Formats: sequence, C-alpha cells, structure tokens
Amino acid sequence: MTATIASVASTKYDTYPESSSRELFSDAVAEVFGTTDVTPDDIDAVYVGNFMGDLIEDQGHMGALLADYAGAREAASVRLESACASGGATFRQAVLAIESGAADVVLAGGVELMSTANIEDVTDALANAADDIYENEQGLTFPGIYALMARRYMHEHDVSQEDLAAVSVKNHNNAVENPLAQFQKELTVEEVVESKPIATPLALYDACPVSDGASAVIVTSDEFARTHDLDTSVSVLGTGQSSDAVALQDRQTITETPAAERAAEAAYADAGISPEEVDVAEVHDCFTIAEVLAVEALGFYEQGEGARGAVEGETALDGSTPVNPSGGLLGKGHPVGVTGIGQIVELTKQLEGRHPNQVPDPEIALAHNVGGSGASTTITVLGGG
Amino acid sequence: MTATIASVASTKYDTYPESSSRELFSDAVAEVFGTTDVTPDDIDAVYVGNFMGDLIEDQGHMGALLADYAGAREAASVRLESACASGGATFRQAVLAIESGAADVVLAGGVELMSTANIEDVTDALANAADDIYENEQGLTFPGIYALMARRYMHEHDVSQEDLAAVSVKNHNNAVENPLAQFQKELTVEEVVESKPIATPLALYDACPVSDGASAVIVTSDEFARTHDLDTSVSVLGTGQSSDAVALQDRQTITETPAAERAAEAAYADAGISPEEVDVAEVHDCFTIAEVLAVEALGFYEQGEGARGAVEGETALDGSTPVNPSGGLLGKGHPVGVTGIGQIVELTKQLEGRHPNQVPDPEIALAHNVGGSGASTTITVLGGG
Repeated sequence: MTATIASVASTKYDTYPESSSRELFSDAVAEVFGTTDVTPDDIDAVYVGNFMGDLIEDQGHMGALLADYAGAREAASVRLESACASGGATFRQAVLAIESGAADVVLAGGVELMSTANIEDVTDALANAADDIYENEQGLTFPGIYALMARRYMHEHDVSQEDLAAVSVKNHNNAVENPLAQFQKELTVEEVVESKPIATPLALYDACPVSDGASAVIVTSDEFARTHDLDTSVSVLGTGQSSDAVALQDRQTITETPAAERAAEAAYADAGISPEEVDVAEVHDCFTIAEVLAVEALGFYEQGEGARGAVEGETALDGSTPVNPSGGLLGKGHPVGVTGIGQIVELTKQLEGRHPNQVPDPEIALAHNVGGSGASTTITVLGGG
Repeated sequence: MTATIASVASTKYDTYPESSSRELFSDAVAEVFGTTDVTPDDIDAVYVGNFMGDLIEDQGHMGALLADYAGAREAASVRLESACASGGATFRQAVLAIESGAADVVLAGGVELMSTANIEDVTDALANAADDIYENEQGLTFPGIYALMARRYMHEHDVSQEDLAAVSVKNHNNAVENPLAQFQKELTVEEVVESKPIATPLALYDACPVSDGASAVIVTSDEFARTHDLDTSVSVLGTGQSSDAVALQDRQTITETPAAERAAEAAYADAGISPEEVDVAEVHDCFTIAEVLAVEALGFYEQGEGARGAVEGETALDGSTPVNPSGGLLGKGHPVGVTGIGQIVELTKQLEGRHPNQVPDPEIALAHNVGGSGASTTITVLGGG
C-alpha cells in the first residue's frame, strides 16, 4: 500500500508567547482540512510529534489530546518522541500504519511550544535529548556538542568559519521569501561570523532559534485517495531510519553521521533511487555544521566537501541540488518536535509547484531529520510533480 | 505478515531507588535475548514505551539511548507515549512495523523509573496524563478522577465499596504467586475498605502502587520465525486502539469507557473472534473501578455488572474468564510506560503454559491498556498454546 499526501499545513514558525500547544495545533489542523475533501471523520489515526510538552506545559498524553482538538476524538492516537527527529519519526510511523493496512487515513502532526519558558529552561529541556549521565550532567549542552563536532571537522578538513557561515547565509536568504519562516532578513558571511559567539567556533547565526509552531500532514493510502477522488500528486517513495549512540563520546567518529548514512541508504533502496536523482532536499541544519554533515551523509558530497555546496552556490535555490529552500532550521526556525513534519509540508509544496521558493520542476524530494547530535535520523523520499 | 512473539522478559516490578532507566532496561534486555536465537544484530527497530523519563531523570530520547543499551545501536528507534497506555501503544506500533514489511524483527520494550522521586513529584508527573488546563491546574489528580468515576458508578448501579474491593483482593491474591509482582501479600475485603482513604470512595488498596520496572518483547514476522527456526508458538491475532477526550468533563459518560469498547471491537474484528472466546485477560486496573469498567467494555459483562466478576469469582484464577492472573496493576505494580508490554509478557507465558498462575490450556489471550482516565486504549489479542 503506497502512502499519498492529501494535504499539508503549517503555522508560521515564530514565538507565540500567549499561545498553547493545543491552540497552535488547532491552527495547523484547521488549515490542513481546508484544502482537501478528507474530513476529520475519515481520520483513523493521529500521530503527534512533540518533545518538551511535559517540561514546558505540564502536558503529556498529547496524542489523545490533540486528536480531540483535530476533531478526530475516536482515532487511534499516540505521541512519538525522538528528540529533534520526533517529527520525522512521527511521519514515518504514519506511513508504516498506512503500509500495514491498519489505517487508511492518518493525520501526522507536530507541535512545540518553547518560547513561553525562559532560555535556561529551554536549554535544559533540549539537553534531555543528550545523554543525561555522560553529557548533560557534565555541563555539555547542544551548542557545545555541535561546537565540538565543528571544531574537529575544521581540524580534519580545510574548512573555515566563513565556509560554515555560508550555510547560514544561504538559508537565511531563502527564508526571506517564505512566509512560514521565523526570520525574513538577509545575512552576510561577515554578519554570521561576527555575531555573538555561543560556543566557539559557532556564533549566534550558526544556530537555529527557539521557535514555536505546528505542522500537519494528512496521509492516505493510494487506494483511499483513488476511491475518494482526492486531488493528490505527491506520494511517499521510501523511508529510512537509523540510530547511533546518544553520547558523542560513544561514537566512532564525530565528523560523520553514520545513522544518517544508513537511514539514507535504506530510504534510497526503499524508493529505488540514487542520491543523484534528488531534485530538492530539506535537511536538519540546527547548526551550520549540521547541514555540511547532512549533505555528505546523503551522498551529495564526499566527506570533507560538504561546505562547498553553500560556498559555491551548488545548494542554493538556483544550484544543482537546492538544499533548504524553506530557509531550513536556521532561517525558518526549529520547533523541535515539529520540524520533520514541516519538512514534508515544504517539500510537498515544492513537488506540487506552489512553493514561494519554487525549484524548477522537481520530481523527487528528500527530507532529513536528526535527533540529538545524530543519534536518531529519519529520511523520507517523496515523489510527484 | 503476521507478527510472532519470539521472546519475552521482565524485571520484577518493584522500587529500585539506586537504579536508572538504562540499567533496568538492560536487565530486561539481557533476559529477553537469553531465551531465543534472535540476536541484537537481528533487531531492525526498537520501540520504547516511557512516560516520565524527562521529568524524573532529565532523560528524553530514550528510543536511541535504549536501542544502544540493547546492543542494537543502529536500529530504527523511537519512544512512544500515550500516558499509562504507552506500553500498549508501543507494542502495537511494533506489530504494525512488522505488518508493514518495514521490519522483520522488532524489540518492543518499556521502562519507567518512578520511585526515585518523592511522591508529590510523581503525582505531578502522572497528572501530565490529564488535561493540564481543565483538570491538572484545577487540582484534580488521578485518584480524584477515578474517585469521581467510582462514585458516579456506585450511584448508577447497585455496587458497594466492598464490591470494588473484591477486585483488589483477587488481584493481590494472584500476585502472591507471581515472582515479578511488587506485592506478595494476601488481602481481605475488610483490609481494602479500611485502608487509608485516598479519594473517597477509593482507599489505598483500591489503587496501584508507584513502581519501577522494565519489560521487553521480541516480535518477528512469521516468515522470519520460520526461516530462522525460532521456537515460537504465540502470535498476534489482532490489535485495536481508540481514543476519547482527555478531560473527564468532555466525555459523554464517566461510567463507561467507550474508547476501550471501540478498541476491543476493532481488535476482535482484526482477530476474527468474539469476547466469549477470550480464555484469559490482563486488564488495566490502576484503580479497582478501572477493572470493573474494563471487563464491561471488553464485552465480558453488561454495563453495571462488571463487579460481579470479582465478587462471584468468575474472573478468579479458576473462574470462567480469569482476569489479571498476574496480579494486575494493583498487585503486580504499574511502572506506567511499561505496563502494556508487561501484559504481553504475562499473557505469552500463559499461552506457552509456563505462568506461575497458569490458567488451564488457554488459546486466546487479551491485553487491555489504558492511558489517562480512558482517553487512550490499546487492545491486543494473542493466540497460541
């Protein structure tokens, strides 16, 4: 059973200090049902990606809670959490539910409210995605983790802070035209490098912001789409998922992301494609170094060559393989449990030819979503257009 | 693709104040690989049920973390959370992963560490399973929620505190012979009714305890089991899952559990059986009233008649349909994200004829796992023997 995308929707990623998860999710849901003949009554299952609701809002059990707010009170529901890959894991389980035959129509959504807490509490909450004993309790939080990876990468390869900054410049510039993006301001390499250091060699604009938001995707079996005359053109060609040690110290390398390599290999095999066939990608650029590692793991670049994509414009909107036309996590924002769902929203719009940063006639699109510093990765390959 | 159970294991449910989730999980994992030819290298995916690791241990991202501790570092991994139905939801997603063809071998595990926190913090953490705005913030925690349900049930039906207490007596007495149970002490109706009131009409022994523990199940496709000559006799005949409003105030009724009725109906249809064919059941008796509502929702009893099972001995070990031979949540304990996995462990042993409270020659077994006060319910029907 092939999974087909019936509808996608998203709030703008931003800070919503007066909102709640249920309100943000309701906004995305209202939009997702507005552009399809699928109704809430059709929904068999609701899968919700969320990372820190327990910590920020004292609210767990978001599967059932948000199924109700989606008008699908009786659907099978569950929350999925794989740190910042929660959204990707959520979408993949929705696809597997369709493929298993257990569901014909699934609402895969994500929501995260972060900005209502102070920055120390958000940093603490995010640190739960690291190994509490071997990282968090030793004072290592994510900017430091990615700074270690960036420093070692710069040591092993001929890559400068300016090269990494090119990723942020590209993605921030892409975000300018995306109304869903948190930032709409162009940056220069100088501005990135000279922004406030947060964990050297990474500066403020090497990092994604704290974001609130919700995204939602309705996935159906191809049979349901056909028998209900749904207007769909995008389907899931393949998925892959793999893991790695959570703590950086337990990895064989900190300048490669083997879980992403394995997940990509599985997704390419599942879709029956090679990396060269990907026309557009949304990848997990929580820090600039992360996009460099991503495009290497995906097979777009050899090890040590990934920064070239942004530096030489190959991953720009008019490049050979545009990466993060949405603005990515750096420019669009990163409501952590939502990002993987948001990537599907962006890529579906690309394949449907209606993205504000439209890539020319894409047929195959790829989403790469990472949890922690690489311990969880999900890859989705979409086809259409 | 049918899902087959290759191995089950569990720690004793107890309090382990010196332990951590990763240690408890490792104990269950060591045992689960000890009695099967499946090796950690065979594991394609690891699904982890956990509810309060973020709140009690500052540890999220338990999918990848515990996959690593299971020796399956590269497997696809995710944590699932549906409040106290997290274990049941986890097992069901593992089954769907097999049925979808995405995985041949899945480790479905659960872990919960609760007793290391003080009781106020545990009660607060559990309250995250309720609706934060309409219940938790108003001061309503789970003993109060279930007391409201019990009080209304006693008002509508001719049921006394003593009748409810009979459920606790039965389950505590069953737990005496179960080495995995937290309590091994017989109780009388008088002892239950006269125990410390926690939320009238419910007293201390009407409630399950705070428990730590981990359980693990290896599920494979029937094809993998066959081609690898695994010694398996128990398979998943069907599953069902449904939801309801999280807040009690939003329900049509508080003396019935319609999500459980829908989930059971779906599972019976999936398995092609009727309720009368169930030989043994493990149901979610977080409070005595919950087992009464469960056996009614499962179709074992008419509305208002459920207490009869325990009062008249029909759900006792030698009754017509034994319910909770393990001791249930009341006697065995309730490490919240684990319970649904633990039920599969217990029932597999029943179907394999090796349970310490063995029911005579069961062929069909049912697990009923509830999140919140009924907002999430998963049902699993196992066959074998």
